[in-house]
Amino acid sequence: MDMTLEQVTRTVERHLHDADLVAAAALVAPLDAEHAVLLVERLGEHDRAVLFRLLAKDVALEVFELLDATLQGDLVRALKDDEVAAVFAVLEPDDRVALLDELPAAVATRLLRALPPYERGLTDVVLGYPARSIGRRMSPEYVATRPGATVAEALGRVRARLDDAETVYVVPVTDEERRLEGVVSLRQLLGAEPDTLVASLVREAHRARATDPAEEAARRCADLKLLAMPVVDSENRLVGILTVDDALAILEEEESEDQARAGGTEPLRRPYLSTPLTSIVRSRVVWLLFLALGATLTVQVLGVFEETLEQMVVLSLFIPLLIGTGGNTGNQAATTVTRALALGDVRPRDVVKVFLRELRVGLALGALLGAVGFVATSAAFDRDVGLVIGLTLLAVCTMAAAVGGVMPLVGRFVRVDPAVFSNPFITTFVDAAGLVVYFLVARAVLGI
Amino acid sequence: MDMTLEQVTRTVERHLHDADLVAAAALVAPLDAEHAVLLVERLGEHDRAVLFRLLAKDVALEVFELLDATLQGDLVRALKDDEVAAVFAVLEPDDRVALLDELPAAVATRLLRALPPYERGLTDVVLGYPARSIGRRMSPEYVATRPGATVAEALGRVRARLDDAETVYVVPVTDEERRLEGVVSLRQLLGAEPDTLVASLVREAHRARATDPAEEAARRCADLKLLAMPVVDSENRLVGILTVDDALAILEEEESEDQARAGGTEPLRRPYLSTPLTSIVRSRVVWLLFLALGATLTVQVLGVFEETLEQMVVLSLFIPLLIGTGGNTGNQAATTVTRALALGDVRPRDVVKVFLRELRVGLALGALLGAVGFVATSAAFDRDVGLVIGLTLLAVCTMAAAVGGVMPLVGRFVRVDPAVFSNPFITTFVDAAGLVVYFLVARAVLGI
Repeated sequence: MDMTLEQVTRTVERHLHDADLVAAAALVAPLDAEHAVLLVERLGEHDRAVLFRLLAKDVALEVFELLDATLQGDLVRALKDDEVAAVFAVLEPDDRVALLDELPAAVATRLLRALPPYERGLTDVVLGYPARSIGRRMSPEYVATRPGATVAEALGRVRARLDDAETVYVVPVTDEERRLEGVVSLRQLLGAEPDTLVASLVREAHRARATDPAEEAARRCADLKLLAMPVVDSENRLVGILTVDDALAILEEEESEDQARAGGTEPLRRPYLSTPLTSIVRSRVVWLLFLALGATLTVQVLGVFEETLEQMVVLSLFIPLLIGTGGNTGNQAATTVTRALALGDVRPRDVVKVFLRELRVGLALGALLGAVGFVATSAAFDRDVGLVIGLTLLAVCTMAAAVGGVMPLVGRFVRVDPAVFSNPFITTFVDAAGLVVYFLVARAVLGI
Repeated sequence: MDMTLEQVTRTVERHLHDADLVAAAALVAPLDAEHAVLLVERLGEHDRAVLFRLLAKDVALEVFELLDATLQGDLVRALKDDEVAAVFAVLEPDDRVALLDELPAAVATRLLRALPPYERGLTDVVLGYPARSIGRRMSPEYVATRPGATVAEALGRVRARLDDAETVYVVPVTDEERRLEGVVSLRQLLGAEPDTLVASLVREAHRARATDPAEEAARRCADLKLLAMPVVDSENRLVGILTVDDALAILEEEESEDQARAGGTEPLRRPYLSTPLTSIVRSRVVWLLFLALGATLTVQVLGVFEETLEQMVVLSLFIPLLIGTGGNTGNQAATTVTRALALGDVRPRDVVKVFLRELRVGLALGALLGAVGFVATSAAFDRDVGLVIGLTLLAVCTMAAAVGGVMPLVGRFVRVDPAVFSNPFITTFVDAAGLVVYFLVARAVLGI
């Protein structure tokens, strides 16, 4: 598999480079959508559009649907208008909105205008909600029924909408004013007698508000293991449905963003190998400069203690080890709390609880590492230096764990991505504060 | 919401502490499973078992199903045998296996023995596959049909299995020897005429091998937006089905593990607030000691250059900034590649491609940061020191990006979690190597 895909990619690139479209088409013809998508993602922007045209029409449509909105946007810019209209029309309204967000306004307007009125209306519903809300990511194409309907009637509605509804497996139940009363599953409907009333089957439904953050709604859908979750407006009126596959896509994007930010980089908007080098550099350079600017604080701190350093050059040997350990301890705490926050295991209100936990954890870790550091350094250098290192480790670990644990919660309070506020930021802060502690301890112990 | 849950938790804890079970039960009675689960996750081990007994029976069963296997294990140890048998019997076979993995062998055997023979057979199927394979996480309770069956017959089979099948929305189609030919969706069956043959509806199915790694199969299921994916043995015989909600749970665990390891800590097996402090300390201390041991390399490197340091103490001021920037650059590259690897955007075979990309990205970043560093340091200190800092930044960024980008792929080659092999490891390596570069450049430029 691995080899085949790599070989196919290289061979296709060669054929396209030689403008041998017949050979390329022959290679691509046997691929199903799953493999074609992998190939399309690995090609450069120009080759991608050429290859896309070589795919069988049904495979091409399926491939287009599986691509990220950013890559869809690249393709749309490269394809001709009638080709674009064809792929645009088959998208679900929510996917269509994600693609529109990627396109220049003029292109987006032209595409929207070309849609049939019904499809356009659905798309407008989704477009009406704020960015990053679940309203933007839900599907407005649901099948609903009334409590007064019989099972046979409800099944009739389901059958009538088999082709266009986003899901038919979860059927919301609403009153005459479209207010959500609950849901029935298709499984229940199939298992019930035809003349049973829906009212006797309806179950209390977990629901999302259309203005809820998309990540939060998707996380709930996933945690509750729901195939689909109804989405309502502020008056509990049904406006759409979130299916688990869309929830999954949302969570995957959020994970990618969180991980990128925790690693001190902006998330890439395309698959790694098809991202231009300049975009990669751009995603990293601002962060690096920002963090380096923060790190000048350490230069200043060391400048203040330059005299102490001149008297005891041996102290400088431990600088990387001490600040590295502080950074590691802080990162551990921040990573754990950031994840707990994302999973909903911890809330911003728990800040005091988290602080006290991490303080105790940091103290325990600091005591252990400090003891090891004292023994090792005493043996390798002398007892005084050992004491300085041991005490500094104790203080730095305690401080780093407490700060690292609280930082993601502070980030949430001030509405900054907790991941941004955690790892890279902590390292910078702990580095500087750790050095101050180090030299104060050294002066006290060594009497300089 | 936030406040209510926090208040309810505290009030319940107080009532349980006062042994006022009536008051606690009254508080808990109106909660649905979604809220009860949040409450159960936040309580300590003892309170959790008491509270669980206070829940209405149907809510309790639902809560149990929603809990992680680890917390289920805690509960099982605290509940009485007949209570355990009741919750154990309602679990799906795959969830049951996850729970069995958490329990002492004697308890597991007793629970298995108490199961009805049919349920026990299903559980044994799942137990037969290796740990971390998708066979362990699939459900053996599928509804399948034959290509020669009519739609009416297929729907009849579906109706007969409504209560116990893991999903009825995706129906695998197999031949007489149970070899998988494809799938039909319930949606297709409902839309077709009753006397249509299944053979005319069957579609080519994406499938997983039961021995495939669970993460890989779950990722494919999610990427392809499938509600369920059939699982086959080495002879393409159907053995089970992976549903998207189980795929989601697998991916969430893997993300948690990856993030934890990237942050230099072992993943916690319980929600943060219900993890004992000693477990948190244990999850971190080995990593910290290991990384500190690695960092002693920097002490040794600096020891080698101690003479240079004594001559020019000013050089020590930049140590944290230089190794920090190197570490940041390496982490950026490692984070991006680790994520691309998890998403399948990059494969281990792409190692040369990745190395060359990151080398160029690192060079670009190093040139930018080096220029800024040269100008700033020349202004604040002198031109020679500026030159040393600028050149070191150029070299360190290039090296760090290349090493950071390749490291996750090396990790995959030697079958170590790429996340383990990346961020913490890189920091240690880049710190030491960066210091060597720094002092060599300094000696060359300053002529010491």
